[in-house]
Amino acid sequence: MSTEAFDAVDVIVAKRDGHRLSDAQIDWVIDAYTRGVVAEEQMSALNMAILLNGMDRAEIARWTAAMIASGERMDFSGLSRPTADKHSTGGVGDKITLPLAPLVAVFGVAVPQLSGRGLGHTGGTLDKLESIPGWRAALSNDEMMAQLDDVGAVICQAGSGLAPADRKLYALRDVTGTVEAIPLIASSIMSKKIAEGTGALVLDVKVGSGAFMKDVDRARELARTMVALGTDAGVRTVALLTDMSTPLGLTAGNALEVRESVEVLAGGGPADVVELTVALAQEMLAAAGRPGQDVAAALQDGRAMDAWKRMIAAQGGDPDAPLPVARETSQLLAETDGVLAEVDAYAVGIAAWRLGAGRARKEDPVQAGAGVELHAKPGDTVRAGQPLMTLHTDTPDRFGRALDALAGAVVVAPEGTVVPIRPLVIDRIDA
Amino acid sequence: MSTEAFDAVDVIVAKRDGHRLSDAQIDWVIDAYTRGVVAEEQMSALNMAILLNGMDRAEIARWTAAMIASGERMDFSGLSRPTADKHSTGGVGDKITLPLAPLVAVFGVAVPQLSGRGLGHTGGTLDKLESIPGWRAALSNDEMMAQLDDVGAVICQAGSGLAPADRKLYALRDVTGTVEAIPLIASSIMSKKIAEGTGALVLDVKVGSGAFMKDVDRARELARTMVALGTDAGVRTVALLTDMSTPLGLTAGNALEVRESVEVLAGGGPADVVELTVALAQEMLAAAGRPGQDVAAALQDGRAMDAWKRMIAAQGGDPDAPLPVARETSQLLAETDGVLAEVDAYAVGIAAWRLGAGRARKEDPVQAGAGVELHAKPGDTVRAGQPLMTLHTDTPDRFGRALDALAGAVVVAPEGTVVPIRPLVIDRIDA
Repeated sequence: MSTEAFDAVDVIVAKRDGHRLSDAQIDWVIDAYTRGVVAEEQMSALNMAILLNGMDRAEIARWTAAMIASGERMDFSGLSRPTADKHSTGGVGDKITLPLAPLVAVFGVAVPQLSGRGLGHTGGTLDKLESIPGWRAALSNDEMMAQLDDVGAVICQAGSGLAPADRKLYALRDVTGTVEAIPLIASSIMSKKIAEGTGALVLDVKVGSGAFMKDVDRARELARTMVALGTDAGVRTVALLTDMSTPLGLTAGNALEVRESVEVLAGGGPADVVELTVALAQEMLAAAGRPGQDVAAALQDGRAMDAWKRMIAAQGGDPDAPLPVARETSQLLAETDGVLAEVDAYAVGIAAWRLGAGRARKEDPVQAGAGVELHAKPGDTVRAGQPLMTLHTDTPDRFGRALDALAGAVVVAPEGTVVPIRPLVIDRIDA
Repeated sequence: MSTEAFDAVDVIVAKRDGHRLSDAQIDWVIDAYTRGVVAEEQMSALNMAILLNGMDRAEIARWTAAMIASGERMDFSGLSRPTADKHSTGGVGDKITLPLAPLVAVFGVAVPQLSGRGLGHTGGTLDKLESIPGWRAALSNDEMMAQLDDVGAVICQAGSGLAPADRKLYALRDVTGTVEAIPLIASSIMSKKIAEGTGALVLDVKVGSGAFMKDVDRARELARTMVALGTDAGVRTVALLTDMSTPLGLTAGNALEVRESVEVLAGGGPADVVELTVALAQEMLAAAGRPGQDVAAALQDGRAMDAWKRMIAAQGGDPDAPLPVARETSQLLAETDGVLAEVDAYAVGIAAWRLGAGRARKEDPVQAGAGVELHAKPGDTVRAGQPLMTLHTDTPDRFGRALDALAGAVVVAPEGTVVPIRPLVIDRIDA
């Protein structure tokens, strides 16, 4: 006789038939799945039923709590300062974490940024930082705490102890067409952030071709779901919906994005990267109880750069070493005179990926220098023959497929056309 | 690089998002699943998406064809007579195959009845016949053909070569809450029947508490789907929708049902068993091109009994040997005078199962003598203290749980109440 509290088929059938799952069913199914008692094919059917039939706010909260309960929780209450974290749902050229973490640290708020590597067309924060000579992603909990106390910012690899059920579930969703379920996305992100123990959390939910969410309504629903989850768990949570129809900044690729981040920390850099860094820093500081800071000043006067250098050095990196450069480059030229109307984020992401900046499988290496550099952004006037992009790679046989990805991605409108520029911050969702 | 024609996730996502699957996608996914290239958890997610989003007639036909193509096909064209087969979706006390196959054979139509063992509360035809001393279920294809030529009827175990994709898929559906999808039920049944090569097929689709389909609309949809599949594949197919709210006949259990079948073959037996046997025989004969036969006469004059004895003897069974009897019995008595209004089929099925007539897992044995014998049917007048049922088992510790299953299953209405008797044949669906 089975000693299990529930039968997996009954739980699947309940959700399949449109019923709520009880707290006890959710607790059991997550725990039993983590233990291997609920089989992969059973969880896969349940995921599809959740994707198609949904879960209500209380079910999602319980699902998230059950995933948190599957592993360890971190505790930053021993730190002398409040904590704030940021999570981006991922976009092309989204290097914001790099200038943001040291910038927030300048104002006495600790930023414990547990990050991952990239998979697919959006880059991973750790991959970017690993292009800095000497920098290492893996820290022990003690090293992380010490760095938070000393520097105030850490960007490192998430330990395997946080929400192990989520890791198992994410790998399953990835191969079974169930990544796109909002309850599952929200609980996956929030289980790790809540288990991590941050006091405040700002979510950057990307919308547009380069983002996971192509549609603003679904992005808003995801943002609301995550803000509710964080709030219910006692984390001060706010979300910005931000545009990802065109790449953020002028670079997509590992070392290329570090270089651009350093430009922002030096008081320069592309306007959109600066705008979003400042907006997110203000949200993080406000959520951590320190509203109204002049964060832009800290980019201009070197304080943020100083914090960056200390943060990189604390993890073995040399912030002053030259960054890797790809062996080969190739340019994409404008075919006509006109106004740049569109540079599609998804296409640029795919091109950077194919050039070697990203990986197709978890075990693949990435090229530090590979990626795409933009020379113009939507709204800019261009002339025929002018370079629009430079493609970078160590392996020039990749240029062909990268250029294939960019076919149709750049639209040049006739001279004099007024190109409407999308606002970068589309909406703000709080509790 | 993969050499596969499709990616499993793309196929899952297409159905998840409500699109039709193309013929090529269906052919690939069934073949790749049979080869183990599409994983169990991927097929499970696809099954759930099919259950919730459906498939159209052409998709179901292609899905069925792909399952047929996964294995061997049989060919009865070498026989000197036409073939007709019957499939029941399963009910409590449904022993109709036993008198039906020899009865149809009397009229020169060969009946190749490939059957299975029972799982859950509905019995399996092979389990019933195995209560006959010496009878064996496993025949080679050559033995089966020889018996069809000689006797005209065979009831044997389906070989493992027919639609192997279906066997794999059924085992998966069973543990993932996706048994109830009409496209998957219909293609599962019809892939085996079409691969088997019968020229005509009569489907007995059960409706009611003791049946898989509780609801007449869903049963009709299943019947229509299967009739369309058979017809499209060149099999003359017709379906009867028949009532399964109360057990068929007066017995549920292996040897108990053989005994009742022999009574029908001897010209007696319960009226409902005779009615359905005759109705299905007429449908099978008509579909095989021999309409208008007086089949009832063949039950009365010994011709059907003669065919039965030859059919049993051809498979090593002794049709005249005493049948096994359970070691212990217990009676359920009427508590009041009145009219029997209801004897719930599902409850009787569960009770017979718990007494040892059925199995919970494929590898479990069954008791030949176990089961439930009814002494009254809905509409009959009963007196307080009169036996309503006799429970049979070799293991008397099972009586308690069997009686638990029967709590509330028998309803006695006040004397004089007119109990509406449901018609046995509810509807007939043809192409």
